[in-house]
Amino acid sequence: MSTSDARRDAQRVLDRCDELAAVSALEGGVERVHLSPEHARANEVAARWMAGAGMRTWRDQAGNQWGRLEGNAPGLPALVLGSHLDTVTDAGRYDGVLGVLTAIEVAGRLAPRAAELPFALEVVAFSDEEGTRFSTALMGSSAVAGAWREEWWDRADDAGTTVREAAAAFGLDPARITEAARRPEDLVGYLELHIEQGPHLEAADRPLGVVTSIAGARRFTGRVVGEARHAGGTPYPKRRDALVGASEVVLAVERLAVERGGIATVGRLQAHPGGVNVVPGLVEFSLDVRAEHDGERDALVEAIAADARRLCTARGLGFELAETHRAAGVYCDADLTASVVAGIAATGDADPLRIWSRAGHDAMAVAAITPVAMVFVRCADGISHAPAESVTLSDVATGLDALEAAVLDVATRRAATHRP
Amino acid sequence: MSTSDARRDAQRVLDRCDELAAVSALEGGVERVHLSPEHARANEVAARWMAGAGMRTWRDQAGNQWGRLEGNAPGLPALVLGSHLDTVTDAGRYDGVLGVLTAIEVAGRLAPRAAELPFALEVVAFSDEEGTRFSTALMGSSAVAGAWREEWWDRADDAGTTVREAAAAFGLDPARITEAARRPEDLVGYLELHIEQGPHLEAADRPLGVVTSIAGARRFTGRVVGEARHAGGTPYPKRRDALVGASEVVLAVERLAVERGGIATVGRLQAHPGGVNVVPGLVEFSLDVRAEHDGERDALVEAIAADARRLCTARGLGFELAETHRAAGVYCDADLTASVVAGIAATGDADPLRIWSRAGHDAMAVAAITPVAMVFVRCADGISHAPAESVTLSDVATGLDALEAAVLDVATRRAATHRP
Repeated sequence: MSTSDARRDAQRVLDRCDELAAVSALEGGVERVHLSPEHARANEVAARWMAGAGMRTWRDQAGNQWGRLEGNAPGLPALVLGSHLDTVTDAGRYDGVLGVLTAIEVAGRLAPRAAELPFALEVVAFSDEEGTRFSTALMGSSAVAGAWREEWWDRADDAGTTVREAAAAFGLDPARITEAARRPEDLVGYLELHIEQGPHLEAADRPLGVVTSIAGARRFTGRVVGEARHAGGTPYPKRRDALVGASEVVLAVERLAVERGGIATVGRLQAHPGGVNVVPGLVEFSLDVRAEHDGERDALVEAIAADARRLCTARGLGFELAETHRAAGVYCDADLTASVVAGIAATGDADPLRIWSRAGHDAMAVAAITPVAMVFVRCADGISHAPAESVTLSDVATGLDALEAAVLDVATRRAATHRP
Repeated sequence: MSTSDARRDAQRVLDRCDELAAVSALEGGVERVHLSPEHARANEVAARWMAGAGMRTWRDQAGNQWGRLEGNAPGLPALVLGSHLDTVTDAGRYDGVLGVLTAIEVAGRLAPRAAELPFALEVVAFSDEEGTRFSTALMGSSAVAGAWREEWWDRADDAGTTVREAAAAFGLDPARITEAARRPEDLVGYLELHIEQGPHLEAADRPLGVVTSIAGARRFTGRVVGEARHAGGTPYPKRRDALVGASEVVLAVERLAVERGGIATVGRLQAHPGGVNVVPGLVEFSLDVRAEHDGERDALVEAIAADARRLCTARGLGFELAETHRAAGVYCDADLTASVVAGIAATGDADPLRIWSRAGHDAMAVAAITPVAMVFVRCADGISHAPAESVTLSDVATGLDALEAAVLDVATRRAATHRP
């Protein structure tokens, strides 16, 4: 494809990112959460673009939007391209969205010769990756992977609306959720393009990178328990100040993560009872721990817990840590990743930067049923989950070419190994 | 008064403490904040008990509840006994309340011979000593001292309700706040009984102590400003984590206070935006600083601010500290304190323990317009501002006798020096 054509296609992708950014519940900002009216509108818009690219479209019972081009025979297993359309609160325009829109664009490019492909080509726009509304991430892709959990139906959003109620209002039938699950034998693999959400491509001055693995986070709620006392009347030897102990824990979390090359974050912390003149008797906090390999991550968790317990005990404080979320890290498939490398190589970077993803992605859930691979696109200053999220026209054009080339590489390999 | 009578009166005081503890916004705990529905109900209950003790009652324009017994002539200057009825969050039953209820009890004892007193005897239940709701302490007693500040009207609670709005909803007229101010010539002095909120009486095995001075606290709201970023995608060199910086500040506050023999407490702290997978971009916290003398206290504030700024700057974080409250330390009046000593001596302790109060009290504000003195009652383990706050029946009985004897001592001295 000529450079001017690629830039024209990339401009259409960016224009569509802007158009979707306006499908928002947030005045002056972007917010589209699972099973919301904005979700329904975004699905309709995406379905229109899918149809425009020549695809047959449908919405599944988990609220995911799909499009499909048949290959050289009807009903072939599908190579799926995609990402998600839901967002965090006050989000940027590209996290998830860029992966869906580049997938539609690539499908549009390949539609005229779809009859040559040894697989069907599908595009999916997942309904819930971020977990913004119901505090559970990857609901859409988990349903596709056959990993829907019954207890999710009763999860409620801040307004008290359950997933079950929201699904019904969205026009879905909770009794039919298992219909969203895809069978492994109907799939060739899953390829996801996503902004990097980190600074490594920018630092390396490259537009694209290939993802080696996706780190699985473990999340915890923690408590430091002391004794609430009068701030004036309680001399230091009598204090059991939960906040001073928690502060030592927060610093230990950072120190241990840096020492061990992992990432550990206390994102939420509050002192109780919270009186200006009361020694804090309780601190509640969250802990999120990631590393390239699950073993390293688990060792970091153990080190943090041991150090925190030691620090708190020395101050006469209690320490508790309860796990709330645990995702296994996922390794991208070697063959599919080779196609991504070939795709990036076709754009001029023969030895693409290999990056492990510190952030979670729909590919983690989909990996349970089919091989997955991912390509990262450079974003400005590594910023995401914020309005300042930014990509360049040139990088998106390169990403489109790489994704298209990767699909064709998969086709070539499959044709070579799956002769009838 | 016979011991059995004193114990009966003390039991009534403790029963009333329990009754007031049920006037609470907190299920299963105690919370009564300024200008709340619970405040109004507590005032009504106290007014009923004041009336039962023979007093004329009224509520002033700052929400304080008053009762008055005339002395040997109508309209004489008043000796005021009292304390406050507001509480911290999840409070105990005695901080403030015990001073109001013992004052009512003593008034009830003296009512039959009030016509012999050379002054009127008043009881006050101040409306806001703790500053729990609007982060400004001593609002009630400051209004009585004519020290209301106009800017207080626009202070808002966590729900965004201003003092002005809350006062209007409480049935007060902000335009008439100055009517709450008392004239020095209408007052003889102010005597406050309060639980010690410290461990010194218990350590000395004495039920009561006399207060020499009240340390003046300075209070601040602080902010550590960083940048909210994705917790997974942002490597440590790019992080400006406001919570890690704030944790260093909390530890510096403790270290500097211990080194300098003062008391400094971060009682409130919260990380924002508070997402489990978001690096905190902002931390808001409170700081309360005390020392025996104001100069030591101010030097401690300067040391904390300098150290906090240095720590935050080293991490690329902003640091802000804004003063919200500043009370000058107050020395108790020598003559009125002599009456407190005489009152305690009448209960059998001829040389009472002298204590400087690390905690602030309404007496600090009232000292601007009339002499003040205070008596401390032993409390278990020095605990206050917590549900475990505890006093003994015997100590309360001794406190009642001492407070009554102190009032009679003031009467004797006044009669001797103010002959008509």
